[in-house]
Amino acid sequence: MPNILFAALTEAWDDYETHLRSALDDEDLQYTLATDLPPAEVDYIVYAPNSTVRDFTPYTRLKAVMNLWAGVEKVVKNPTLAAPLTRMVDDEGLTQGMVEWVTGHTLRHHLGMDAHIVNPERIWDDTPPPLAKDRPVTILGLGALGQACARALTQIGFHVTGWSRSKKDVPGVTCLAGAEGLDAALTTAQILILLLPDTPATTNLINADTLARLPQGAVILNPGRGPLIDDEALLTALDANVSHATLDTFRTEPLPRDHAFWCHRRITVTPHIASTTRPDSAARVIARNIARAERGETLHHLVDRTAGY
Amino acid sequence: MPNILFAALTEAWDDYETHLRSALDDEDLQYTLATDLPPAEVDYIVYAPNSTVRDFTPYTRLKAVMNLWAGVEKVVKNPTLAAPLTRMVDDEGLTQGMVEWVTGHTLRHHLGMDAHIVNPERIWDDTPPPLAKDRPVTILGLGALGQACARALTQIGFHVTGWSRSKKDVPGVTCLAGAEGLDAALTTAQILILLLPDTPATTNLINADTLARLPQGAVILNPGRGPLIDDEALLTALDANVSHATLDTFRTEPLPRDHAFWCHRRITVTPHIASTTRPDSAARVIARNIARAERGETLHHLVDRTAGY
Ligand SMILES: NC(=O)c1ccc[n+]([C@@H]2O[C@H](COP(=O)([O-])OP(=O)(O)OC[C@H]3O[C@@H](n4cnc5c(N)ncnc54)[C@H](OP(=O)(O)O)[C@@H]3O)[C@@H](O)[C@H]2O)c1
Ligand SMILES: NC(=O)c1ccc[n+]([C@@H]2O[C@H](COP(=O)([O-])OP(=O)(O)OC[C@H]3O[C@@H](n4cnc5c(N)ncnc54)[C@H](OP(=O)(O)O)[C@@H]3O)[C@@H](O)[C@H]2O)c1
Repeated sequence: MPNILFAALTEAWDDYETHLRSALDDEDLQYTLATDLPPAEVDYIVYAPNSTVRDFTPYTRLKAVMNLWAGVEKVVKNPTLAAPLTRMVDDEGLTQGMVEWVTGHTLRHHLGMDAHIVNPERIWDDTPPPLAKDRPVTILGLGALGQACARALTQIGFHVTGWSRSKKDVPGVTCLAGAEGLDAALTTAQILILLLPDTPATTNLINADTLARLPQGAVILNPGRGPLIDDEALLTALDANVSHATLDTFRTEPLPRDHAFWCHRRITVTPHIASTTRPDSAARVIARNIARAERGETLHHLVDRTAGY
Repeated sequence: MPNILFAALTEAWDDYETHLRSALDDEDLQYTLATDLPPAEVDYIVYAPNSTVRDFTPYTRLKAVMNLWAGVEKVVKNPTLAAPLTRMVDDEGLTQGMVEWVTGHTLRHHLGMDAHIVNPERIWDDTPPPLAKDRPVTILGLGALGQACARALTQIGFHVTGWSRSKKDVPGVTCLAGAEGLDAALTTAQILILLLPDTPATTNLINADTLARLPQGAVILNPGRGPLIDDEALLTALDANVSHATLDTFRTEPLPRDHAFWCHRRITVTPHIASTTRPDSAARVIARNIARAERGETLHHLVDRTAGY
C-alpha cells in the first residue's frame, strides 16, 4: 500500500485532493495520500517545484517524484534526488491549453488583429491578410507540446517547420534537427514559437546571432521558458527585424513591475497562462503512472537527468 | 465559343485577368474574355455588385451571371436579371480565409487576449482561461462558411452548436434549425458567430429580444452582414449581458467615421476583411462552372432567387 506525499503549495492541495483520490481509486489502488508523512515512509512524491521540499535525502524509500509541471528545470539538477523523476504530459489539459494559446496568438499575429483592437484613428484598411498557407511558422521544440501545436497549426493551413534535438517525423511538418537544422528553421520563420525546455543547452538560444537570422517582420511567441531568450538582444532586435514578441514566460515571474517588457509597444506579456496543469486530467495521469510503477512497469514521462528535460 | 464579360471594378480586372485566362485555358475552353463586349453577344458575366452593370436587359443571350462575392444581396432582387445567378463558394480562398478569421477571433475572446494586449496597469493575473471544451460556441448559418468554421472550431475542442433554415448534419456539431431551434442556439452561446446571408428573413435577427437571450458575458462575432444586427439594440446589450462584439460587416461600409461603433470600448471593428475572394482560386471556381455550363451540366452554387441567397 503506497504512501503518497503531496508536496506543492497549500492552495494546490485544495484543487487536487479530490481529483487525486478519485483517480487513484479508479486505478484500484490502496494508498495513503497526505501533505505530511514521515519521510522514511514515503513511496511517491507528487511534486511542484515551489513546494517546501528541497532536500530529498530523508525520503529513503522513494520510488519516484512526479512533477506536476511540464518544466523540470527547478528540480532536475537537485543533487539530493536519486529516485526517478517524471514530468507532466497531459494531453487533455496541459497540452490542449497550450494548443489553444499557441493557435490563438499565431492567428492573432497572422491576421494583424492588434491594429483593429486598438485603432483610435478609425483607420479602415481593407487589405486582406495572406492565407495561412503563405505564412510559414517555425516551432523550436517538437516534444509533447511542440508536436501537438504543429499538428493544430498544420490543420488550420499553416506551413509548419519544427526543430528538435533528435530528428522527428510529424506528418505534414518539415522536421529539422540539431545545429545544422537551426539556420533553415530560423530564416523561414515569419512566426517563431519557442517550446523548448530550459536546459544549459537552450539557455539564450535566442540571442543576437539567432535573432538576426529571422526574416524582416518576424514575430516571436515564447510559451516555453524565459531563459531561452537573451532579453537585451530581443529588445535590440525589436528595433530591427523582429516586429513583435508575445511572451508568456520570463526569467523572473511575475515579471517585475519595472521590467522594460511591460510597456514596450512591440511586446505583449501574458502572465504564464499559456497552459496550466488542470487538476482533473493531471490527477489521472499521476494515478496511472503510480499504478504502472506498482505493477512493476516502467514509468511514463521519465526525465533524462543528464539532458535536463 | 463563349463571350465572357468581366464586370467589376477596374482594379479587380488587374487582379483577375491573368488568373481567369489561365483557369479557362486549363478547362480547355475557347473563349473571349473582356471588360467591354456588345451586350447582345455576352454569354457569361463574371460579376461584382459594385460594377457599373445594373441593367441586364440588353444582355439578351446571357447564360449565367457569376457573382465574385459570397453575398448576393445587392444583385439577387434585380428585376432585370432573368439568367441564372451563381455566388462564390471557394474552399481554398474565401472559405479558408473565413475559417482563419473566425478561429482567430474566437480564440482571442476565449483566451481573453485583449486584457494582455492592452495592459497599462501591468496586471499579472495568472488565472488560466477555461479550456475550449468548456466554452460553448454557436454559429448562426451552416452554409459553406458556417460548416467550415464549425468543423475547424470543433477540431480545436470547442463545443459548437449550429443553426440554419433547414436541418443539417455536421459530425460533432449540435445542429438546430428554424424558429424552434433558435432559442437553444442563443441561450447556450458564450460566443455567437453570425454567418447568415442578408435576406428579408435575416434582417435584424439580432435584436433586443434575441440579444436578451444570450448568456451573461456573451461575445458576438459578425463576419456575416451588417443588417443582421439592429445596431441600437446591440449598443444597449453591450451595457447589459453582451461583453464584446467584433464586427467585420456593417450597414454602411466603410463604417462612417462618426459611427458609435468606432470608439466603443466593447466593440472591435475589422474592415470587412474576414474573408476576401482570392483571384487565383476564385478564377478556378468560375472557370470550372463555365465549363460545366458549356457541357450542358447544371451550374454549381446557384442562388435561390426567392429565398434571396
Ligand atoms: N508557459 C506555459 O504555461 C508552459 C506550460 C507547459 C510547458 N511549458 C514549457 O514547454 C516546454 C516543452 O514541454 P514539452 O512537454 O513539449 O517537453 P518535451 O516533450 O520534453 O519536448 C521538448 C522538446 O525540445 C527539444 N529540445 C530539448 N533540448 C534541445 C536542444 N538543446 N536543441 C534542440 N531541441 C531541443 C526536444 O528534442 P528531442 O525531441 O530530440 O528530445 C523536444 O522536442 C517545457 O519544458 C516547459 O518549459 C510552458
Ligand atoms: N465578411 C466577409 O468577408 C464575408 C465573406 C464571405 C461571405 N460573407 C457572408 O457570409 C454569408 C454566408 O456565406 P455562405 O457561403 O456560408 O452562404 P450559404 O452557403 O448560402 O449559407 C447560408 C446559411 O444561412 C442559413 N440561413 C439563411 N437564411 C436563414 C434563415 N432565415 N434562418 C436560418 N438560417 C438561414 C442557410 O440555411 P440553409 O442551409 O437551410 O439554406 C445556410 O445554412 C454570406 O451570405 C455573406 O453575407 C462575409
